[in-house]
Amino acid sequence: MILNRLRLIRRAASAPGCSLCISLSKQLYCSSARRTRVRDALSSLETGSSIRIQGWVRSVRSQKNNLFLHVSDGSSLQPLQVVASSDLNTRELTFGCAVDIIGSLEKSPSKKQSVELQASHVKVIGECNPVDFPFKIKERHSLEYIRQYPHLRCRTNAFSSLLRIRSEATSAIHSYFRDNGFVQIHTPIITSNDCEGAGELFQVEPAGNEHSSDKENPHFFSVPSYLTVSGQLHLEVMAGAFPAVYTFGPTFRAENSQSRRHLAEFYMVEAEISFTESLEDLLKLMEDLLKTSTEHLLSHCAEDVELFHKYVSPGHREKVDLILKRKFNVISYTEAIDILKRSSQQFIYKPEWGCDLQTEHEKFLVKHCGDVPVFVTDYPYDLKPFYARDNQDQPQHTAAAVDLLVPIVGELCGGSLREERPELLKTRLARAGLEETYAWYLQLREFGSVPHGGFGMGFERYLQCVLGVDNIKDTIPFARSSRSCLL
Amino acid sequence: MILNRLRLIRRAASAPGCSLCISLSKQLYCSSARRTRVRDALSSLETGSSIRIQGWVRSVRSQKNNLFLHVSDGSSLQPLQVVASSDLNTRELTFGCAVDIIGSLEKSPSKKQSVELQASHVKVIGECNPVDFPFKIKERHSLEYIRQYPHLRCRTNAFSSLLRIRSEATSAIHSYFRDNGFVQIHTPIITSNDCEGAGELFQVEPAGNEHSSDKENPHFFSVPSYLTVSGQLHLEVMAGAFPAVYTFGPTFRAENSQSRRHLAEFYMVEAEISFTESLEDLLKLMEDLLKTSTEHLLSHCAEDVELFHKYVSPGHREKVDLILKRKFNVISYTEAIDILKRSSQQFIYKPEWGCDLQTEHEKFLVKHCGDVPVFVTDYPYDLKPFYARDNQDQPQHTAAAVDLLVPIVGELCGGSLREERPELLKTRLARAGLEETYAWYLQLREFGSVPHGGFGMGFERYLQCVLGVDNIKDTIPFARSSRSCLL
Repeated sequence: MILNRLRLIRRAASAPGCSLCISLSKQLYCSSARRTRVRDALSSLETGSSIRIQGWVRSVRSQKNNLFLHVSDGSSLQPLQVVASSDLNTRELTFGCAVDIIGSLEKSPSKKQSVELQASHVKVIGECNPVDFPFKIKERHSLEYIRQYPHLRCRTNAFSSLLRIRSEATSAIHSYFRDNGFVQIHTPIITSNDCEGAGELFQVEPAGNEHSSDKENPHFFSVPSYLTVSGQLHLEVMAGAFPAVYTFGPTFRAENSQSRRHLAEFYMVEAEISFTESLEDLLKLMEDLLKTSTEHLLSHCAEDVELFHKYVSPGHREKVDLILKRKFNVISYTEAIDILKRSSQQFIYKPEWGCDLQTEHEKFLVKHCGDVPVFVTDYPYDLKPFYARDNQDQPQHTAAAVDLLVPIVGELCGGSLREERPELLKTRLARAGLEETYAWYLQLREFGSVPHGGFGMGFERYLQCVLGVDNIKDTIPFARSSRSCLL
Repeated sequence: MILNRLRLIRRAASAPGCSLCISLSKQLYCSSARRTRVRDALSSLETGSSIRIQGWVRSVRSQKNNLFLHVSDGSSLQPLQVVASSDLNTRELTFGCAVDIIGSLEKSPSKKQSVELQASHVKVIGECNPVDFPFKIKERHSLEYIRQYPHLRCRTNAFSSLLRIRSEATSAIHSYFRDNGFVQIHTPIITSNDCEGAGELFQVEPAGNEHSSDKENPHFFSVPSYLTVSGQLHLEVMAGAFPAVYTFGPTFRAENSQSRRHLAEFYMVEAEISFTESLEDLLKLMEDLLKTSTEHLLSHCAEDVELFHKYVSPGHREKVDLILKRKFNVISYTEAIDILKRSSQQFIYKPEWGCDLQTEHEKFLVKHCGDVPVFVTDYPYDLKPFYARDNQDQPQHTAAAVDLLVPIVGELCGGSLREERPELLKTRLARAGLEETYAWYLQLREFGSVPHGGFGMGFERYLQCVLGVDNIKDTIPFARSSRSCLL
């Protein structure tokens, strides 16, 4: 009876202007029932209490007398089982529809869940046509398939888990830095610098600026301006006033690549510490950050992470456990080249002292180290940008730079001590013809310069590494890459 | 004696390649002294312990027998007082230089501080020429003055306080949402949408793309792409799968304005909640967020906030206390227009039903409400974008939208319920000729649509409001505005 009334209300309420129905519907729901999130209901011990649940239907099963629903509201992967009289079933009650349910939370007779909701009212508040909806009940859609629907994929179990994990990982990383006395700096997105000294920059101008009336200076900011590729130089500014700073935000590369490894917009965690004594300070920080955040994630998102380790990357959990339990390896770049040269593996790029490590080399080195992460230190001086600290060694001239290589992704972090000695920095900038461009950067060394260093970690690569996700596009809410910017 | 040795080391160490001196210097500091942050030293109860402090000199005072230094490392506003034999004074020991100091932490005889460091070793690790350094000892520089030195201003007390406050406020906001079960979503920076339906967008293309060889499709992303002006539409995607989501990141406006109120790149906190019952749900959330975050900030950054309330905005603290203690006012837009019309104040823009409120109106309304924040609700339907929920009222047709007005800044937050009814949304999009552009958005309403709503809060405006800072450029690490993109 009540349901028929509800259905009438629902139909009437979607006609514009029927305030009577709205108030009637409100009145109906102004019971003593407490609005409760599914997550809280699932862990509640107060059985017998009257609660109200709002969410989306994940499954519908109608028996002779009883109607069984699974309802999820996104607060947890596990849905709440709802049991109602089969009288309450309606045509609108389909996979994906939104519902508002009142009932009594009771101990479940089944072993699959500890509680269930015995519903007295079931109201469909948003219909979902099962023919048009791209996700089907009881089907497990591949990550590739759901990626085609950027506006709907959060409604799948896998991607809603990913989003909860990403949120929790973000929180874990912020907590780590806060607990260790780092000041968070919002480094700028638009910058007139080109940190890496390399191309692949996005340029920024107001839309329609090609018709700028100011021919003398067509630039909005007076100078050409770009989307940041790294917050490092801005963090170094702060390293002149704080013991430790970090930034965690979007960075950009206009890379014409469709690979599973690259995004045009991705998130980086970057940290800079002052008063460093050696590269060792950075290694400790990276290892500690990685282990602490991952432990946090595994304990706070166990259910969601398990979905990935069970269905997306079977066997990957063991690699994650190795990351947590083992001390990370440390080898020098020179040793790494030796290992690669001595190996019997056929590489596409021949390993050679003085050349950058390729992804195939990085993955080999991780395997060589028994799938335990490995730091590669002291890269050839000439491979590294102007800011890397000169080791002043010979005959193989190196800089105090380090990469952290991990399973699945290869390079996860890259960092270095920075050249804090004004004379050495000045010489190197002059040689590169950058003395004028980086006059402000040189000044940082002229007023109370301190030894310092830092690193950056690709956040999506971190998620790939923990979850075993193959395609980086499946780790970010809205992926941007060459030829693709949906929504 | 030791100092002379130190000075020799220092001079030698700045010459390239002297590894002997570096190891000598290391050995000297490999004592039992524990590296300690100034903040921890200041609150330490372990007097008598040997510690090592690294930081920057804030003041130098040499007496006959004793040398007094104030050393700060950015971990707190308050510096640590260092007392040493005047033998340890050197020419390099100037305001702004970087030092490495070993000594014994002792109870201070002065009432100005509880502890002081009695130093046995004082080493200058980075000199600072007081003639060239733009900040002078014992001078209080204005915020305008220090703004000229974006790479050095973090070395002043005021701006280092601002940065600690900004970091803590960021953390407080994240905690608030986390504690209330919100999932954080990294909404994209680059987007093919124009959320506000208005101009002033930055467009994005790879640098050098004007010479693109692909004349058929010159766009990197195949479509024109812009820097986001709001993450709202992307949050609305998520409101179809989660009970509550938020984003906190940079947003952009290509506004040709040099005002104290605008930045081209600024931070927004945006939240979206599902299953709303009325605008009241949003009002509660905004008020609670503002009060909770501000209370956190006042208790966790007391010293830094006090600097602003004492020297930058005397008298402002009382306004902040009002914000915390009083229930915020709520008036409708229609009432607001009545109040403005009845007032004797001469406005530049005449208040008129159907026209947007100007900053002068907003500030008047806040004053009218006794400097307590005020929500203005139910704006004219035609003033609001397509997504605002139709109140279906008459004769004055309004939408369920709200602005929060606060002292100092005027509009701090803006939000609305969103039109969740597919028929109404479809009609409005069609009328605006946007049916095709927002086909994906309309689809959100076709698959399990739920009533929802959200708001955005300008983060820099929030800091202005709490600290009483007049110019928005003084609340962000690196300010970007028309004609200015330094570093």
